[in-house]
Amino acid sequence: MTKINENFLKLQAGYLFPEISRRVRAYKAKNPDAKIISLGIGDVTRPLPPTIISAMKKAVDDLAGADTFHGYGPEQGYDFLINAIIENDFRPRGVDLEPSEIFVSDGAKCDTANIQEIFGQDNIVAVTDPVYPVYVDTNVMAGRTGQANKNGQYAKVVYMPCTAKNNFVPELPNSPVDIIYLCFPNNPTGAVATKETLTEWVDYARDNKAVILFDAAYEAFITDPNIPHSIYEIDGAKEVAIEFRSFSKTAGFTGVRCAFTIVPKQLKAATSNGRAVEVNPLWNRRHATKFNGASYISQVGAAAVYTAEGKKQTRQIIDIYMNNAALIRQSLTKLGYQVYGGVNAPYIWMRTPDGLSSWEFFDRLLRKANVVGTPGVGFGPAGEGYLRLSSFAKPADVKEAMQQFANV
Amino acid sequence: MTKINENFLKLQAGYLFPEISRRVRAYKAKNPDAKIISLGIGDVTRPLPPTIISAMKKAVDDLAGADTFHGYGPEQGYDFLINAIIENDFRPRGVDLEPSEIFVSDGAKCDTANIQEIFGQDNIVAVTDPVYPVYVDTNVMAGRTGQANKNGQYAKVVYMPCTAKNNFVPELPNSPVDIIYLCFPNNPTGAVATKETLTEWVDYARDNKAVILFDAAYEAFITDPNIPHSIYEIDGAKEVAIEFRSFSKTAGFTGVRCAFTIVPKQLKAATSNGRAVEVNPLWNRRHATKFNGASYISQVGAAAVYTAEGKKQTRQIIDIYMNNAALIRQSLTKLGYQVYGGVNAPYIWMRTPDGLSSWEFFDRLLRKANVVGTPGVGFGPAGEGYLRLSSFAKPADVKEAMQQFANV
Repeated sequence: MTKINENFLKLQAGYLFPEISRRVRAYKAKNPDAKIISLGIGDVTRPLPPTIISAMKKAVDDLAGADTFHGYGPEQGYDFLINAIIENDFRPRGVDLEPSEIFVSDGAKCDTANIQEIFGQDNIVAVTDPVYPVYVDTNVMAGRTGQANKNGQYAKVVYMPCTAKNNFVPELPNSPVDIIYLCFPNNPTGAVATKETLTEWVDYARDNKAVILFDAAYEAFITDPNIPHSIYEIDGAKEVAIEFRSFSKTAGFTGVRCAFTIVPKQLKAATSNGRAVEVNPLWNRRHATKFNGASYISQVGAAAVYTAEGKKQTRQIIDIYMNNAALIRQSLTKLGYQVYGGVNAPYIWMRTPDGLSSWEFFDRLLRKANVVGTPGVGFGPAGEGYLRLSSFAKPADVKEAMQQFANV
Repeated sequence: MTKINENFLKLQAGYLFPEISRRVRAYKAKNPDAKIISLGIGDVTRPLPPTIISAMKKAVDDLAGADTFHGYGPEQGYDFLINAIIENDFRPRGVDLEPSEIFVSDGAKCDTANIQEIFGQDNIVAVTDPVYPVYVDTNVMAGRTGQANKNGQYAKVVYMPCTAKNNFVPELPNSPVDIIYLCFPNNPTGAVATKETLTEWVDYARDNKAVILFDAAYEAFITDPNIPHSIYEIDGAKEVAIEFRSFSKTAGFTGVRCAFTIVPKQLKAATSNGRAVEVNPLWNRRHATKFNGASYISQVGAAAVYTAEGKKQTRQIIDIYMNNAALIRQSLTKLGYQVYGGVNAPYIWMRTPDGLSSWEFFDRLLRKANVVGTPGVGFGPAGEGYLRLSSFAKPADVKEAMQQFANV
């Protein structure tokens, strides 16, 4: 008789976004004329710039010609994209990578979800609280956790609280951990890690033979020149860290699908009897066995992001979002709210007023301002009392939402 | 200390295609003027037809407009594609499916690789011999097998030999199995399953509470009107089968990436204490947690396959490949070879002459005809003494290859 993977039964219902939708629908039903503005979504809204569009149309045309047709590409991605990544994202920051250390994929969500497969069952996983749920849920599915408690936190997982007190940067764990998920610039708090912070983490991982899974999907939003974009800007990081990058937010590719992951050759992990094994070939085997390459069209589009025009045009779009972020920060600060993030990240993490819970303030904001945010508690118990606002909405909507905030 | 997933160390080296490349390179080095024709590859060669090209260009244009931009889509795929699938691939064959039973993805390789995750560790897996290696390797990675023997077959896996004696259709297992991978039309043998055969398997699965993972990636190549295209044409199959479909071979999407998987609502599997659980929500949770939707451009292209023009144009391409297959069959039969497949599948499975092993004949064919095939033993020990020829090459190349065969 076929047995299911019972770890799936431990998973808590994906409650956050369905519950937001339910409350918004209920409000709309009662207030059919209300114009509701969502600052809750993490999806981009600006159309793709002309350079990327024409590159992708050219790629589609390639598929129409007998001599330019592209079938299966390398599972790891085309050299034209991998080389552009190395030369533009890493070399200028003093990071040398080999092409075989880069794995192009169809999304950072997929990569951060799949990476745990190459590690053993009995590793202790550490995540921040609040956290992007994919890191946790995929380890639940794989059986690395126990059951969830009433806060939705799973036994065996080490949660590292991120609060205003620690500037939303977690402290080093005080119990042994093997696999550490870090995301900077952070979703949902918008916090960043300085060079000193990342050095502490890299040193910790080296001392404790742990692996850091570093999600840098939002690196393009960093404005402070002193903040590292890649964990490999830290000495020794190649021995302990895997880095995830994405074109989704950087270049508006949430519907196009292209991302990449870096698994350095120096990175090793151990067998149960202590033999050190290179991790890169394990991921290569996983990637080549379970994935058949990102779309040729998407890879051509991604390569266009690195042309002179592509860089200029994607930067203009990021600037629009960061202007939104600045407007949100300024407006809310002026209204007396405590806000975090939004300087090097597209997310603003605001303290709820009057001791309200995340959901209580969500309701008040919806009712009084017709604005939708994302309750911070949905990302973990340390997010209670916070709301995440996204800067990806249209500028006019952000402006209107900020005016409405005055009514709250 | 971080531990690796040691199941990866059980994996045999991906020997087949690298070894083919090595032998071809060595031959070319000695015979620089030889024009070598490959009938070894499983990739398509024809460019995409105009209807699909213009649909995808339109989709790219959509991404350039503020009002037509598409960011994240539903992880399960857009309704416009799901409905086209239901109405064109299934309804006309008497199979009713709900939209929520269809999961659009970026490839059938990914789906056939990932599906095992929702099932428990202690299921017994049955595969055919010869077999598409992804089915086996992904179960090795997940820890459902023991070590490999000298033939490359893994302990705990039930291998079902497919030989000329059983018409390359496996017999029902005589020991208990839980998860059965079937692929019809078959890669590599080109065999098909009749309605009677599939009914036997569905009945077996129902009687034994097993699950059939039915890979129908090559269904578009079926020419015999009596051969089922979907396992759901068999009564009761929805209770026991998951079906995988792909646009890769059907519509030349190997570089575009689009596929889908059907997980019927009726399908159940059990917890360890025997409670029946619906499988569809488990796959939905897996898909939504670890995947972020197929590219919008690819999905628009896939939907165009179902338009009247799209159907006609993709059919013309399949006809070209099937003419290749017919030419290979006829030519080799005339030369006295024993050939199988190639009637309802793009693969021809030929017996090697003179008692030669797969690799011995591979070498002779390369030397005497400058033609490359795929040694059958590379797909499993029951493939020894066979060579797989693909009909995806250009017609002129196939013609030339068949002329060269006379020299062997």
